[in-house]
Amino acid sequence: MAIDTIRWTGDAVRIIDQTLLPNELVYLDCKDVKTLWDAIKTLKVRGAPALGIAAAYGVVLGIKDYKGTDTPKFVKHVCDLCDYIGKSRPTAVNLFNALAQMRGLVLYNPDKPVQILKAVLEAEANAIFEEDRAVCRSMGKHGASLIKNGMTCMTVCNAGALATADYGTALGVFYAAKEAGKKFRVFALETRPLLQGARLTAWELQKNKIDVTLICDNMAASVMRNIGIDLIFAGADRIASNGDAANKIGTYMLGVLAKHHKVPFYIVAPKTTFDLKIKTGKDIPIEERSPEEVTHFGLRPTAPKGIKVFNPAFDVTPNELIAGIVTEYGIIRKLDAKNIRNVLTK
Amino acid sequence: MAIDTIRWTGDAVRIIDQTLLPNELVYLDCKDVKTLWDAIKTLKVRGAPALGIAAAYGVVLGIKDYKGTDTPKFVKHVCDLCDYIGKSRPTAVNLFNALAQMRGLVLYNPDKPVQILKAVLEAEANAIFEEDRAVCRSMGKHGASLIKNGMTCMTVCNAGALATADYGTALGVFYAAKEAGKKFRVFALETRPLLQGARLTAWELQKNKIDVTLICDNMAASVMRNIGIDLIFAGADRIASNGDAANKIGTYMLGVLAKHHKVPFYIVAPKTTFDLKIKTGKDIPIEERSPEEVTHFGLRPTAPKGIKVFNPAFDVTPNELIAGIVTEYGIIRKLDAKNIRNVLTK
Repeated sequence: MAIDTIRWTGDAVRIIDQTLLPNELVYLDCKDVKTLWDAIKTLKVRGAPALGIAAAYGVVLGIKDYKGTDTPKFVKHVCDLCDYIGKSRPTAVNLFNALAQMRGLVLYNPDKPVQILKAVLEAEANAIFEEDRAVCRSMGKHGASLIKNGMTCMTVCNAGALATADYGTALGVFYAAKEAGKKFRVFALETRPLLQGARLTAWELQKNKIDVTLICDNMAASVMRNIGIDLIFAGADRIASNGDAANKIGTYMLGVLAKHHKVPFYIVAPKTTFDLKIKTGKDIPIEERSPEEVTHFGLRPTAPKGIKVFNPAFDVTPNELIAGIVTEYGIIRKLDAKNIRNVLTK
Repeated sequence: MAIDTIRWTGDAVRIIDQTLLPNELVYLDCKDVKTLWDAIKTLKVRGAPALGIAAAYGVVLGIKDYKGTDTPKFVKHVCDLCDYIGKSRPTAVNLFNALAQMRGLVLYNPDKPVQILKAVLEAEANAIFEEDRAVCRSMGKHGASLIKNGMTCMTVCNAGALATADYGTALGVFYAAKEAGKKFRVFALETRPLLQGARLTAWELQKNKIDVTLICDNMAASVMRNIGIDLIFAGADRIASNGDAANKIGTYMLGVLAKHHKVPFYIVAPKTTFDLKIKTGKDIPIEERSPEEVTHFGLRPTAPKGIKVFNPAFDVTPNELIAGIVTEYGIIRKLDAKNIRNVLTK
């Protein structure tokens, strides 16, 4: 992989400043917690798995120069750090999960010397990082088994290396297929309004020498009909117990178009994306975002002043449109609550 | 109608400079042929019917200060004018049709005095203008009969007043329904890459006080599923004998989504849009446009340098996805070559 979205250098959290992509590839060394906090807040680093890793390493950053030896004071310091980092972005579940793991380590080990706790916390952050890599690789391997030589695939938004510590989810399938020596090509939807497909996915795939063609979202149907698509892979933000999958707006559109054109449509997501407390996609709340994302390009208006806008950031693809969900445990094809629970908890 | 896309003032062709929309509404008085030619070339005036009218009035502009009385010299002057105007844009059929009508008038009346020919040419240009208005009104009336109070409609690109001398095609249906006192609302797709939906349709409908909501193209499926759409109206650039309709990219996407969500999908187009020499949509050539339309916003790149792009400007919606074609003769519901020919030539 030619992309190091996030890593610990020993004294800094090194990230790619994603706000500058695709025009510039700039690595930013966050040497203190405040710099990292700002980077999370301003979307310099993004993507649920990458945010979990950033949060964990944020704790490591915040204790690296800690000089005291009093464990209770150190525990309080770590808890304060976690509270602070937790305020950077309110919605990323992985960020809170990672902080809960870090906090738990010190809370449940109040008798360990500070030096030991520091080492354990760094090891835990590394473990979160490594687990994400392993999960990405496993999903990639399972998904890549679907790709045959000469196939043409399609993807939407950025479910790639830039959202994780490694391969990504949907794009990980392409990376694994390429490493396995398969020849295929990919159509990437630009993904309005924020163009993650154009800015991030096109950049990632190009950098990894995967044959990628960028299209506008409204061209997907025409490409399926006139060029032919063999497989579609998309990521997910939250998956209900029955397999209904919330993902970036436009994913449901792809699901419907895939059904009409008889193209198998796969979701690629790890166990942590499933929310088994939720029965169906109807219970997944859909965030509506600012009208300016649609009416402006940068500061330039592209629609009349005062125009009404509907800007849902996500949509839900019902399980009947999904051929399977590619997880680190394999591909779940029978999408019902019982089978999904069995696979994920076996 | 609050929009005067094009009209003859008596000594100038007054157009709306569409390149400045939606940020500024500026009328441009073209007082000589060169100014009008440049306005056509640079898309200040656009839309097939509007271009036909612009070409006809261009001839009127070019003869308005003609002082000679020798008819053969005048005929040559008019033919030269037509040749010149015909070089402004190569693909708009209406432009050439209008010029052929103007040229024909002088060629077939070589014995009339110059003063008479000048008057006849101006009357012909006015007739082309008026015919477009009448056709728009008729399509609008037929289409509006489909809209019932409380309905939610959807449209794509700009098939509106800004493309014609009056109502437009698809948007004419909305204007006629509003004038008939019906209450309804419209979702307008922004229409990437050139955003005619955001820049022109949203502006037109807003200006005519029609309840319009702007969405990105990839939100159409989600709106159909979650909000509910009752009717879809789109324009067309060329319709084959069997009713397959070429229109702005994304129209076919809407056709497939409409079928899945059981939403009646109508094309609105005058007789002049039908190309009865062409059997099916497969024979309609699809223009591919510059990658920069997709990879840049203005001068700012939004995709990585050197990325491969597929940018078809149009797609073809097969007749089986179309509930009917709204023409000036009524709504053609049985879309086969025989029935279409019967309706259009009766």
